[in-house]
This record gives sequence, structure tokens and C-alpha cells, in this order.
Amino acid sequence: MAMAMAMAMGVENKQVLLKGYVDTIPKESDMEVKVTQTQLNPPNLKGSAAILLKNLYLSCDPYMRGRMRDFHGSYIPPFVPAQPLEGFGVSQVVDSDHPDFKAGDYVTGMTGWEQYTLVSPTRAQQLRKIHLDDDIPLSYHLGLLGMPGFTAYAGLFEVCCPKKGEYVFVSAASGAVGQLVGQLAKLHGCYVVGSAGSNHKVDLLKNKLGFDDAFNYKDDPNLTAALKRYFPQGIDIYFDNVGGDMLDAALGNMRIFGRIAACGMVSLNSLSDPQTMHNLYNLIPKRIKIQGFLQSDYLDSFPRFLEHVTTYYKQGKIVYIEDMNEGLESAPSALVGLFSGKNIGKQVIRVAHQ
Amino acid sequence: MAMAMAMAMGVENKQVLLKGYVDTIPKESDMEVKVTQTQLNPPNLKGSAAILLKNLYLSCDPYMRGRMRDFHGSYIPPFVPAQPLEGFGVSQVVDSDHPDFKAGDYVTGMTGWEQYTLVSPTRAQQLRKIHLDDDIPLSYHLGLLGMPGFTAYAGLFEVCCPKKGEYVFVSAASGAVGQLVGQLAKLHGCYVVGSAGSNHKVDLLKNKLGFDDAFNYKDDPNLTAALKRYFPQGIDIYFDNVGGDMLDAALGNMRIFGRIAACGMVSLNSLSDPQTMHNLYNLIPKRIKIQGFLQSDYLDSFPRFLEHVTTYYKQGKIVYIEDMNEGLESAPSALVGLFSGKNIGKQVIRVAHQ
Repeated sequence: MAMAMAMAMGVENKQVLLKGYVDTIPKESDMEVKVTQTQLNPPNLKGSAAILLKNLYLSCDPYMRGRMRDFHGSYIPPFVPAQPLEGFGVSQVVDSDHPDFKAGDYVTGMTGWEQYTLVSPTRAQQLRKIHLDDDIPLSYHLGLLGMPGFTAYAGLFEVCCPKKGEYVFVSAASGAVGQLVGQLAKLHGCYVVGSAGSNHKVDLLKNKLGFDDAFNYKDDPNLTAALKRYFPQGIDIYFDNVGGDMLDAALGNMRIFGRIAACGMVSLNSLSDPQTMHNLYNLIPKRIKIQGFLQSDYLDSFPRFLEHVTTYYKQGKIVYIEDMNEGLESAPSALVGLFSGKNIGKQVIRVAHQ
Repeated sequence: MAMAMAMAMGVENKQVLLKGYVDTIPKESDMEVKVTQTQLNPPNLKGSAAILLKNLYLSCDPYMRGRMRDFHGSYIPPFVPAQPLEGFGVSQVVDSDHPDFKAGDYVTGMTGWEQYTLVSPTRAQQLRKIHLDDDIPLSYHLGLLGMPGFTAYAGLFEVCCPKKGEYVFVSAASGAVGQLVGQLAKLHGCYVVGSAGSNHKVDLLKNKLGFDDAFNYKDDPNLTAALKRYFPQGIDIYFDNVGGDMLDAALGNMRIFGRIAACGMVSLNSLSDPQTMHNLYNLIPKRIKIQGFLQSDYLDSFPRFLEHVTTYYKQGKIVYIEDMNEGLESAPSALVGLFSGKNIGKQVIRVAHQ
């Protein structure tokens, strides 16, 4: 009787809600943490083909900022105000009416920023089952082996087509994507330099992530001159995670037939802010290609990516740095921190222990 | 005896000299026309494998401005001050010690901005013989069937890969390159809109060159809004001859997987001038490609281009507008006029009648 009461009342379900749309860099106060109730064995699940997930890890990614804007024309719709944010997560199935999933399964894919998420059948189709592996932390499915890792892989190999011996520059190089871009390029035989926003990150790039060189862009008022020092021969490939002044500086240092993968523009305060460019004219005489891309266009290569990067990781040829925050309460500050570079490595939130 | 005297003294050879290097838009006063003497049967030709050319037509092209700068790191070296400018020309061989050319041959390729040019064996290798064809004006080898025409062909087909039904925007659309881009795109089944800088040019685009629509960019203070009117569905392909604000406006109107061929930046006053861009962020969500290119990288396709475009022209499916200036004296003003849009169609200088 007591148990039936508990089930009927449900359990606590903490949520991170978007208060309202945001045009500039998000602040913690744009979100609120609220405690609601949910039922672990919802009576309406039966016959619905839905799944109830217990979220274990949530991913903080810069693209989420785009979903906080009131703009409906992009590749992904905006969040709904007063509803939980959404993002990539690693979760465990609590209850399932879906034929492909059963209670206890570990899955990764889009979930809510909350402790428990009811997933519709349509969205369940987009979840991917994870097989537990003692050598691979579950949270890595949000970074090294998840969307950011695949972004690095697809952007480097499918967009930039690196050749052995080429000169590769990566910005935001210690971030979720950048750290893998650099390591994959090194394994491919390239010379790799990264930029980051603190001396600690520069040290990690040089001494833990195996970059050939790295620099703190905040120490250098003239980025074009800085890149000329690090690449006296010029840059063949620029993997651009930041846009703005660094993109301009790279354009001024590209070699003939250089390729720029436009992956992120985290430097922009607001999308509508004008950017002053000095080096666009190099596009023509140097035959430079700038290619914007989304990893989701290359999903055919995902299984190959997973196999390659898992193997490299298990062989000790790749390392991966995570920045793990504890508890949903820390999620707003963790997300906001991405835009000031507070995170060191891939930013993840642990919602619950496995 | 009188004739021998004349030959020894030579003939008049008018030349257009670069006075000194120029960083901004060239002015007529940056060049001077000087009359020198040359010998039509130079005694030192024998054994040299050189050729003496009589220049018939000279081409004015925007890229020549790059050769007026004191910058030695580009794909083509700068002009030499106090020496004649160089450019594409159509010429007749007056005297030849080169096995591949004989007096009377018509050729096209790099020549001097002067009446007679002595061509070294190395440079003679780069000349192409022209077979006279009553249906094709010789000067067309500087435009429709020359470098500008091939720029249009390579940029459209090799860089932009148009598909039937796609929306194509061309800037400087009545110029040497733009007019062919638009007509080739139309023949390929695309919807084509061009921009130009006068109502007369807009009229030519719509009523002579067969564009679906055209507009005078000087009439529209808000280019982003203008393009939205002409392309309510967005732009698949932007063939960019001007850079600057129009490139920015196009970036704000591209469709997903849009392609921009960066062919010229004739709008820039000076390469070092900053450009304010508002729409670069579209690169990523719309997966836009910007590709700088030079026609010279695609020369393998030149014979195919020549065959296709000659056939189209003879079938009356393509027209070509030339702006012909008479005499070398008019060459400086013709070249300078390119940068204010004075020319209507391909700017050519007739140095001598055939």
C-alpha cells in the first residue's frame, strides 16, 4: 500500500528549464532549475511505444546556444520556453513499451535536461544502444565517441581531406572537438598547432594531447602575426571552431589550395554582430575553400569513426579530456561556461551515478 | 636603300608603361603612353627561337590590378615599372625563329601592351594558335573563347556543380565573365538573376542576355533585402565577381548546401581595406561552401570548353557583348574604367586592324 502510494505520487524529477529566448551569450539566469514529479512506471506507457529514461550524463555543447534563440529557420528547432532544455545524453531505460528497448538498456541520443525523460516513439528511433565496455567511460559517448568526436572526424577527413605532412591549425583546440581534431591529424602525419584561451590549456595541448605546438590567443593582440610565427610556411588546413578574428587571421596565413572547415563560431557575442574581415581577398589567389558543415550530414561514416577512434583509444594512441560537473544544479553554469572558455576539455554533467 | 634605312631605323612602337606600383584602384595617370622604335626583322632573332608579334587586340581584365601592386607572393608576378603592361592579346606573327610559329600565324596568349612584342621561346610555348573562322571575331579569343569565358565555364561547372532547376545569382553579370556564367546556367536549366551597376546593363541582362531577372545594385541600399526579393526561395549558387557587401548579402540568402565561387573582388578599393560582414555565421547551419578559384587550375577542360561554347555560339544559343576601344592611347582609360563599371561587356582594345 505504501509502495503503491509512492508510485502514484512518483519521484522527484529535477529539470533545467529555459526561461525565455536569448539573443546574446546565455547567462545562468536565462535558465532555472525546478523540481517536479514523475512516475517511474507511468500507467499511460502501455501501448504508447514510448520509453522512460533515467538520464546519467548530459552534454553541454556550443550549438545549444542556437536553440536558445527565437529562430525557427535553422537545421534544428529552438527550445520551448518553460520546458526543459534538450541535448545529447547517456541514459538508462527505466521502462519501455518500445520493441527495440528494454528496461536496463544504456542508450545515447537526444534527451531532456532533467532526471527522467519520457521519449516518444519517433525520438526513440534516434537513440543508439550502448554496449558497456569496462575500458570506455559511459560519458565518452557524449564526447570522444559521440557528436563532438564525430564532428572532429567528419570535419577533418570528409571536409578537409588532410594529406601527410600538411600544416593543420585548430582553434578552441582543447575543447570537445578540437582535442580530437589535433590528435587525429597527428596520427595522419600532419604538423598540428592549436590555440586556446589559457596557459593551462596550452600546456595540456603540448604535453598531454601531443600537439606540435600551441599558443594562448589572449596573449597575442595580433593573431595574423601570431599564426605567421607558428606557421612560417603557412596553413594547409584550418579547423575553425571560433570564427571572428581568428578566422580572419587564418585567412591571412593560408597556403595555396588551403581548406577551412567552418565548424563553430563560438567567438561571436551575437549572430547579428558585424565582423570586420581584412583577409577575405586571399580566397581567390590562394584558391581557398571555406566549407561550413554539420556532422549529421556524414552519418554514413559514423560506424567507421566509432571503430577507428575506439581502437585508437584502446591502443593508447588517443587521450580525451573531460570536464565533469556534478548534478543538474550545475548544468546552467556549465553551459554558460562554454562561452567564456571556463571548461577544460569536453563539458559533461553527471546527473546520476550508474 | 631607302627601305634598308627604314628597316634599320625600325618602326614606331607605341607602348603603355606602368609608371610605378599602385595600391588602390588604378588611375590613368599611373600609366603613360610612350612611343619607341622597334625593328620588324630584328637581326638578333635568328637562332634565338623568339617570335615578334604584331598585337591586334588587347584584353582589359580586373586581375591586372593585382599585377600593379608591389607584391611578389601571388600566383603571377607584378608588372615591372617603366616597362609595358602585359595581358592577354590576339596577335599576328611578324617574324619567327620558333619552330612552332611562322609569319602570318594568328596567336593568343600573354603579350605586351604595345604595338609589337618580342616573345621569348619560353613564353612562346604558352601561346595558342588561332584558326581563322569567319563566324567568330578574332577579339572573342580574349572574352567569350578566352580566359574570361573559361573562367565562367570552370567556375560554374567545376566549382559550383549546378543542377537543373537551381537558383543562380551572378554579380557584375554583364561583364566579361558574368554574361557567360548566366547564359551557361540558363542553358543548364537554372533560374538566373544578375546584378549590375546601371539600368542600361540591367536591360541588356534581361533583354539581350536572357537572364530571368536582373537589378541595379546601386538602386538598392539594402542588398540583403534586395536578394531576398529576387530569390524568395534562396540562392543555390552565387558566382561572385565583386566581393564585399554583395558577398555578405548573398551569404545571408544562401540555401542549404549553397555554393559560392569566389572569382573576383572588384568592389574592394584596396586589398587592405577592412570589410564588414554580417552573415558569415550562415556558413555552418546552411553548410555553405565558398571556393576561391583561378581558371588556370582547370586547363585540362579548356578544349571541352572551347568546343561547347563555340558550338553554342554558332547555334545562336549564346551572345556576347564587347566594349571595344580604339587604339593603345585609350588603353589606360579602358583599364581604369573596369573598376568604375564604365565598360559594357568585355573590355577590349583594338591596337591594329587585321
